[in-house]
Amino acid sequence: MNAPTLPYALACPAPLTESDRILIGHGSGGRLSHDLISRLFLPVFDNAALRAGDDAGVVQPNPGTRLAICTDSHVVWPLFFPGGDIGRLAVCGTVNDLAMMGARPLYLTAGFILEEGLEMGMLARVVESMRSAAAEAGVEIVAGDTKVVQRGKADGLYINTAGVGVVPLGLDLGGVRAEPGDAVLLSGPIGDHGLAVLAARGDLGFTVDAVSDVAPLNHLAARMLEASDAVHVLRDPTRGGVAATLNEIARQSRVGIALSEEAIPVRPPVNAACEVLGLDPLQIANEGKLLAVVGPDDAERVLGAMRATRYGEEAVRIGEVLAAPPGRVLMRTALGGTRLVDMPAGELLPRIC
Amino acid sequence: MNAPTLPYALACPAPLTESDRILIGHGSGGRLSHDLISRLFLPVFDNAALRAGDDAGVVQPNPGTRLAICTDSHVVWPLFFPGGDIGRLAVCGTVNDLAMMGARPLYLTAGFILEEGLEMGMLARVVESMRSAAAEAGVEIVAGDTKVVQRGKADGLYINTAGVGVVPLGLDLGGVRAEPGDAVLLSGPIGDHGLAVLAARGDLGFTVDAVSDVAPLNHLAARMLEASDAVHVLRDPTRGGVAATLNEIARQSRVGIALSEEAIPVRPPVNAACEVLGLDPLQIANEGKLLAVVGPDDAERVLGAMRATRYGEEAVRIGEVLAAPPGRVLMRTALGGTRLVDMPAGELLPRIC
Repeated sequence: MNAPTLPYALACPAPLTESDRILIGHGSGGRLSHDLISRLFLPVFDNAALRAGDDAGVVQPNPGTRLAICTDSHVVWPLFFPGGDIGRLAVCGTVNDLAMMGARPLYLTAGFILEEGLEMGMLARVVESMRSAAAEAGVEIVAGDTKVVQRGKADGLYINTAGVGVVPLGLDLGGVRAEPGDAVLLSGPIGDHGLAVLAARGDLGFTVDAVSDVAPLNHLAARMLEASDAVHVLRDPTRGGVAATLNEIARQSRVGIALSEEAIPVRPPVNAACEVLGLDPLQIANEGKLLAVVGPDDAERVLGAMRATRYGEEAVRIGEVLAAPPGRVLMRTALGGTRLVDMPAGELLPRIC
Repeated sequence: MNAPTLPYALACPAPLTESDRILIGHGSGGRLSHDLISRLFLPVFDNAALRAGDDAGVVQPNPGTRLAICTDSHVVWPLFFPGGDIGRLAVCGTVNDLAMMGARPLYLTAGFILEEGLEMGMLARVVESMRSAAAEAGVEIVAGDTKVVQRGKADGLYINTAGVGVVPLGLDLGGVRAEPGDAVLLSGPIGDHGLAVLAARGDLGFTVDAVSDVAPLNHLAARMLEASDAVHVLRDPTRGGVAATLNEIARQSRVGIALSEEAIPVRPPVNAACEVLGLDPLQIANEGKLLAVVGPDDAERVLGAMRATRYGEEAVRIGEVLAAPPGRVLMRTALGGTRLVDMPAGELLPRIC
């Protein structure tokens, strides 16, 4: 639902029709997802929080309280993968969506859809993993729900987590706030989550030494916001990867973004697997990384704060915000050229989160 | 997750083991659901809001703000049925869980799990139905998420809605607050939703003139709370019906509840279908009814307030709270006898909501 609302429609194909059908790509965080959201959901559910198109809606139930509210359903397959599982993913994904709005995540809900026949031991492992991730993030799971569907009507289990956090009065992060001159920071190497899940499916024909980065980023985000009041945008590059996330920000703020290919960290095994598979690491989902757009004078200070935290040790500056071309992300390649980094189409890696 | 936490364990069978498997009955709101929640989820996610075992968790993010937070995943089949559809159900179910805590529902999230191949026109109808129900309730859908799974990994679509509402300072509703002498009120006839969905499946072999009662009850609840400060418990009898809900309250408050069979309204076609099918209307899910436990001196005033609202016109008094037997619900039958109204076992009507 949290999608760019601006010039994107210009680039869209023909309108959705009644007889169109949902494709796997509608769930992959790329162009098809954005079409669906901007054409089918947003015009109907229209309100200010949704229109902002950020990772969580920000609302104010009373003058002294600002809340960030978000939701994510998790359908990752397989349920367990190197570095994590659907339970850790469900908690961290929602904690991170709140943290990206500058919120202190406080409360989560957990809605389980279980397939008849699921082993109780497997469910217990997932629940324990959720507990552990919630404890690390410092959030409580304050409400829950369990539904069961017949065999063949789900795939083991799906988990929805919604989250509520408190946003400090006066703090205003959002995809519309990138300004020409701002630095673009990345908290560490990209692509690990997507490759770890893909490898865990066992159908690659070769092994990949990738471990999911799935982690709660709220403590990292808090240190960054303590270090500077010039943090303009925080966003975690999940489905659609860094490519989708930076395209969203470029469109929301009507700015250009220029990246330096050499500056973007990718671990060697992830890079090698991407080359074999024809995948672009920029389009691969991460679950424990964030992108930040920060005023240039504070960039080094914020990087220092990031590097002092567990999940930001490998933080780097990867690019800058330009006045033009608006809505576009460009990459200066290692060979000295420039290429366009487009919004992924979306059929890349289904059920990655 | 919102389940009795008290003497229930005493009545439970052997502990869950790793090799046990999820059964359809674990999702039906009866005894198996309660086992799963009280043994597998509650001990792991332990916190005060969950332990209360009410329809929503109540938390206090700052001294001036109390929030109710809840979640429900919806897997009803078929997606459309007389009187409603999965979209209206998803909005009303969550609005009602908030309203049952005395909260003013404000914000909803919507998480969609779509099956590849779903017709866009069907999704659009569901989304429009959600918009309409949200407008009726006066809530905004402030965050959303869309995932897609392969054909055969869902059943059209599943919708999770989580909700956030504001609870007035000083208001304290909850299943633990029933007191001997209190009146038990019911907002109207029971069983319509369950029978409407069952009939829509088309495999009964006969038709049932039942229309789901699915409706937002927040305005009804607000009028009741304005009329009296002796409303002790509000709860909507969804999965497991009036039988499950009153058993929960009896256990939470360690009181007995005595019902008068003649006072409980059931529409003739619903009653007739239940007789043919061997179903007990007390165990059938409702989606637009509430039960209230109210101090005896205020019962008539609260009934009057209920009857002045759209969804409370047929409100009646159906019983009273007793000091004993604790944790039990008894029914005075039309023939002058007394029978135990037990917690349903739970395999009754899968995927009713």
